[in-house]
Amino acid sequence: MDEIKIKFLPDEVSVAVKQGELLLRAAHAAGVHINSSCGGQGTCGKCRVLIKSGAVQGGKTEKLSDHDYAKGYRLACLSHVIEPLEVEIPPESRMNRLVLDQNLSHKPTGRLAAPLNMDALKTKRHRLLVEKKFLHLAPPTMENNSSDLSRTLHALKKQFNIKNIEVDYHVIRNLARVLREGEWKATVTLLSAAAGSLREGRSADRLINIEPGDTAGRYYAVAVDVGTTTVCAELIDMNIRESAAEASDYNRQMKYGEDVISRIIYSQKNDGLATLQKSITDTINGVINTLIDAQKIDRGNICHITVSGNSVMTHILCNLDPRYIRTAPYTPTVNIMPPVKARELGVDLDDHAYLSAVPLVASYVGGDIVAGVLSSGIYRRKGNALFIDIGTNGEIVVGNKEWLVTASCSAGPAFEGGGIRHGMRAAEGAIEEIRIDPDNCEPVIFTIGEKKPRGICGSGIINIIAELLEVGLLDQNGKFRTDAPEGRIREGIDGMEYLLVPSDTSGIDGDIVITEVDIDNFMRAKGAMFAGYQTLLESVGLTYADLDEVIIAGAFGSYIDIEKSIIVGLLPDLPTERFSFIGNSSLAGAKMVTLSTELWEDAMRIAGMMTNFELSDNKSFMDYYVASLFFPHTEIKNFPTVMARFNNIERICGRMRKMHP
Amino acid sequence: MDEIKIKFLPDEVSVAVKQGELLLRAAHAAGVHINSSCGGQGTCGKCRVLIKSGAVQGGKTEKLSDHDYAKGYRLACLSHVIEPLEVEIPPESRMNRLVLDQNLSHKPTGRLAAPLNMDALKTKRHRLLVEKKFLHLAPPTMENNSSDLSRTLHALKKQFNIKNIEVDYHVIRNLARVLREGEWKATVTLLSAAAGSLREGRSADRLINIEPGDTAGRYYAVAVDVGTTTVCAELIDMNIRESAAEASDYNRQMKYGEDVISRIIYSQKNDGLATLQKSITDTINGVINTLIDAQKIDRGNICHITVSGNSVMTHILCNLDPRYIRTAPYTPTVNIMPPVKARELGVDLDDHAYLSAVPLVASYVGGDIVAGVLSSGIYRRKGNALFIDIGTNGEIVVGNKEWLVTASCSAGPAFEGGGIRHGMRAAEGAIEEIRIDPDNCEPVIFTIGEKKPRGICGSGIINIIAELLEVGLLDQNGKFRTDAPEGRIREGIDGMEYLLVPSDTSGIDGDIVITEVDIDNFMRAKGAMFAGYQTLLESVGLTYADLDEVIIAGAFGSYIDIEKSIIVGLLPDLPTERFSFIGNSSLAGAKMVTLSTELWEDAMRIAGMMTNFELSDNKSFMDYYVASLFFPHTEIKNFPTVMARFNNIERICGRMRKMHP
Repeated sequence: MDEIKIKFLPDEVSVAVKQGELLLRAAHAAGVHINSSCGGQGTCGKCRVLIKSGAVQGGKTEKLSDHDYAKGYRLACLSHVIEPLEVEIPPESRMNRLVLDQNLSHKPTGRLAAPLNMDALKTKRHRLLVEKKFLHLAPPTMENNSSDLSRTLHALKKQFNIKNIEVDYHVIRNLARVLREGEWKATVTLLSAAAGSLREGRSADRLINIEPGDTAGRYYAVAVDVGTTTVCAELIDMNIRESAAEASDYNRQMKYGEDVISRIIYSQKNDGLATLQKSITDTINGVINTLIDAQKIDRGNICHITVSGNSVMTHILCNLDPRYIRTAPYTPTVNIMPPVKARELGVDLDDHAYLSAVPLVASYVGGDIVAGVLSSGIYRRKGNALFIDIGTNGEIVVGNKEWLVTASCSAGPAFEGGGIRHGMRAAEGAIEEIRIDPDNCEPVIFTIGEKKPRGICGSGIINIIAELLEVGLLDQNGKFRTDAPEGRIREGIDGMEYLLVPSDTSGIDGDIVITEVDIDNFMRAKGAMFAGYQTLLESVGLTYADLDEVIIAGAFGSYIDIEKSIIVGLLPDLPTERFSFIGNSSLAGAKMVTLSTELWEDAMRIAGMMTNFELSDNKSFMDYYVASLFFPHTEIKNFPTVMARFNNIERICGRMRKMHP
Repeated sequence: MDEIKIKFLPDEVSVAVKQGELLLRAAHAAGVHINSSCGGQGTCGKCRVLIKSGAVQGGKTEKLSDHDYAKGYRLACLSHVIEPLEVEIPPESRMNRLVLDQNLSHKPTGRLAAPLNMDALKTKRHRLLVEKKFLHLAPPTMENNSSDLSRTLHALKKQFNIKNIEVDYHVIRNLARVLREGEWKATVTLLSAAAGSLREGRSADRLINIEPGDTAGRYYAVAVDVGTTTVCAELIDMNIRESAAEASDYNRQMKYGEDVISRIIYSQKNDGLATLQKSITDTINGVINTLIDAQKIDRGNICHITVSGNSVMTHILCNLDPRYIRTAPYTPTVNIMPPVKARELGVDLDDHAYLSAVPLVASYVGGDIVAGVLSSGIYRRKGNALFIDIGTNGEIVVGNKEWLVTASCSAGPAFEGGGIRHGMRAAEGAIEEIRIDPDNCEPVIFTIGEKKPRGICGSGIINIIAELLEVGLLDQNGKFRTDAPEGRIREGIDGMEYLLVPSDTSGIDGDIVITEVDIDNFMRAKGAMFAGYQTLLESVGLTYADLDEVIIAGAFGSYIDIEKSIIVGLLPDLPTERFSFIGNSSLAGAKMVTLSTELWEDAMRIAGMMTNFELSDNKSFMDYYVASLFFPHTEIKNFPTVMARFNNIERICGRMRKMHP
């Protein structure tokens, strides 16, 4: 069969595929990314592309308007290639590097009362998870010709009082040469016993590398937050105990589905697990290469990699079938993964480097949360804290130094722009803020990077809905006021909608709107999160009033407006000073455990003490969820400050009704 | 360059080589074995071959008589191929399987007072080095959905009280599938903590394999004695705790030199170590295949391999450069080798199988001796014992349950037929015994397999020399009596010689003789052994009279005649009931440690408690050595029973001199 050539714009990348191939698959083959939330089911409408020349078969669903179809838009996941094509990937269907870099550089702001801060980790009081020790060995003589290995272990004991060593074959293989090359001076690398401990077990320090001479002043580790969407890493200079470089990239698994469920589904296909595993190691290898290039270090000087990720990411990275995570009774294969040679997993580090994964708690409570709780310090404090990571998989922890309970709730993709007609990632051109003039209902639009608006990012949705509520254009059920002045509020293909940006000023080919369907999807997402907090608090006999602090983790969380999040009922109505942001706490935690075996043991302890609460079949959760499907909440008395604002709104609305009868 | 064809007889194997190639190398390429002690230096004369058609360049040294040269014999190691050839490998240049099988089947005879015998190991009191445990797991529920790994470890703790487990990645990789395939019944394989212990350290049991269902009744281990010359193995049915099959083969390293020194020299060539390492793993793999075929078992059911070998063999097998063993201060890289995946060394067993090496003591005191001492049981008894393994590298241990001292002496190859004009291995046609008629000096010859005589094996040399001494044809300096009757004693190319078999009745093309040079070589070898015992005994303040037992280990030792060995001064003059043979004690020890962690710990203890005595630069040893260069010894008063015999000999000789004036 002849191959058909396709050229993708604006990248100008070409690929030849066989007749009938799906356009989405052709793009993957060409290395061109097209967003796709539903894993190619035709239901998310994210993979809209513009056919510039040639024609495809299929590519139309209800997710594509007749107007767009007429202009040449098609859904890539449903379009079959039948002739040569030029295809443009419009901006809203592409990922954007800007956000990634923001993910990293956006450091925790707000109050952070953790007793453990990064500066404390620079003191030598903390034993490193991996450490180098410079040894002076006594050269062998006829009187003492014990083995090279005994001599090495003896020196470790004598100089550093380190006993109980296990020794990698790799070390023994090089031992004789290295000791003589360094003239009986050598540097050993030790992986702490802490890293190998399986909680129930005990373990020994592990001698993982030996080098001639004194190299103890030169070694690095990598900490990696393996996110479902993005992979963020820091290169840690172990000698000075701080970050030397940062890097991040989109998780290359993205092309196989955007959330963990679609990844699990993909993993069940032929070679699916292997493909996903290679995608994540490719991503990690790319990020490591960036770190190496940034600091111009030798790869061989990286002696460890610590990863923290949710349970699915951790399982896939470790080449473990994640399917049992998804089905009742939701059983992970491992929570505490023994250290494994990085190279055995395809991570391109030296032979001696091990990979350690921050321990998991349960199928839907992963190492990212354990690392987050660790870096928040709430497990060391007396006061009650609520720790939340808002996202497609919302993560909730409640507790203090005595106990920790956790739950994971499937909020859906609304926070990341999924299920929102013009939803998009927090990239340039995303609407993040609006102000509506209560007199004429006209909005002022603020976008990321002050570019022409292209869509609405997650924090933008919160702000838009809060503003619509405040000016009274939206009622507490999430419906547009039918008595609102016409023009901006209108009937669209999904029902009623508010026109944010008309096509003549937008950065895309058409109007940008927010619809009642979008608002309903958002309401379900925030409702799930809120019902999660409530159920979890109730399970330990607490109410919001008992919370001394609310810690918001995650890249998404860092961008939200606390007051507006309270207005829409995503956050509880507490004084704003009780809230704090801690940014990418998963990455921070991965770094912290690398710098301190004490904190690694804390992470093990956190994973062990966390009680997981399954929400999926919990009766209270369902009740709370239904009660949350209102702005801010049906139990309006729990939102006194919002009540006060809304009373004010009523007055405004009354005035408006008078003006536009 | 054109290739030249060579056909080897009697195997009828052909090979094509390039012009100028050495004939010995061509034989290796064809997979045809030719004996060679000197590693191709032209000095041992063992690689004599007969050129049946065609001609070679070179191949003559003083090691080849003019007579043989004229007949077409050449030394393969010095012959260059210049034209097509037919080459016959004569019997004396070939190895012989018969002896190998004898090595295995020749079981310890004589008294064996060890409190540990193989039968005792069949009781369940002993924990196996590797064991299988059948687990009933509680299937996960929503109430208890802990990880598969926690569930497995919990069952191990609950059913068998086994805690402190380390887990191989290999196991985790298969865990979820295996548990479900077996419907929450699974069999785990554990490598005992004992195997991983580095003496100073502690270690944990290691979970190395998991299989669905109950397979606990079906598993095997292999014990291998890795000898410089031969590799002997037993397949152990771990379930019934006894041998299921035996197999052996020549060490394929033989073609690169016959003793450990020539192997070390070879290892320093380009790829030399890799070549030797592959040779020994090839040998082990061949032997394992034989064991598998014999019992028709699955390779996957072999879950461990224990090897015992001298330090050089152990280092090479573990891919460790042995060069430092050979030069002062004689430092091994490891004495206690951590368990290593068999497959990592090229041993063809399942992914999960580890290889454990019986610990070494020093460069010239290896795991074979530790295993030997273990199987002899002397380290558990109160009485003083002398343990000896007579061979090219003679091994000596003196001690009891309180202390053990050991030494290794380089006796040279005379015991294995090296340095003896017609010396050969103990194969069919080897002269093992003679009786000389004192009246006419005519011998009666006894050969192995009652075949036509082809040469003299090691035990035969002892018996011949003892007989020559007893009938008075040889004096105590090792010189033939010049006043002896002519005919059998004559002048040869190496000086005086005794004609054992004239060419018309021999199985080779020529006479078989024993020369004064042969006898001198033997005297040096037995002198080195004897001086070794003396030095070692003196070092601990003992004399022969203090010895409660003398244990003779090794295949060679099993064939020697105690009385005649005393006559020649190879063994001390003690009552014969104090001597016992224990055969291949290295193999027996390797098997014992596999069947009992208690004995594995004993082996560690033995290796730890053995004090090594370097003889090579010891003054006493040199003095004793010189004093031993006499039959039986210059200190004749220490050999009272031999004295009595020799007095009798004097009488016979007096009679002979009278008869043949």
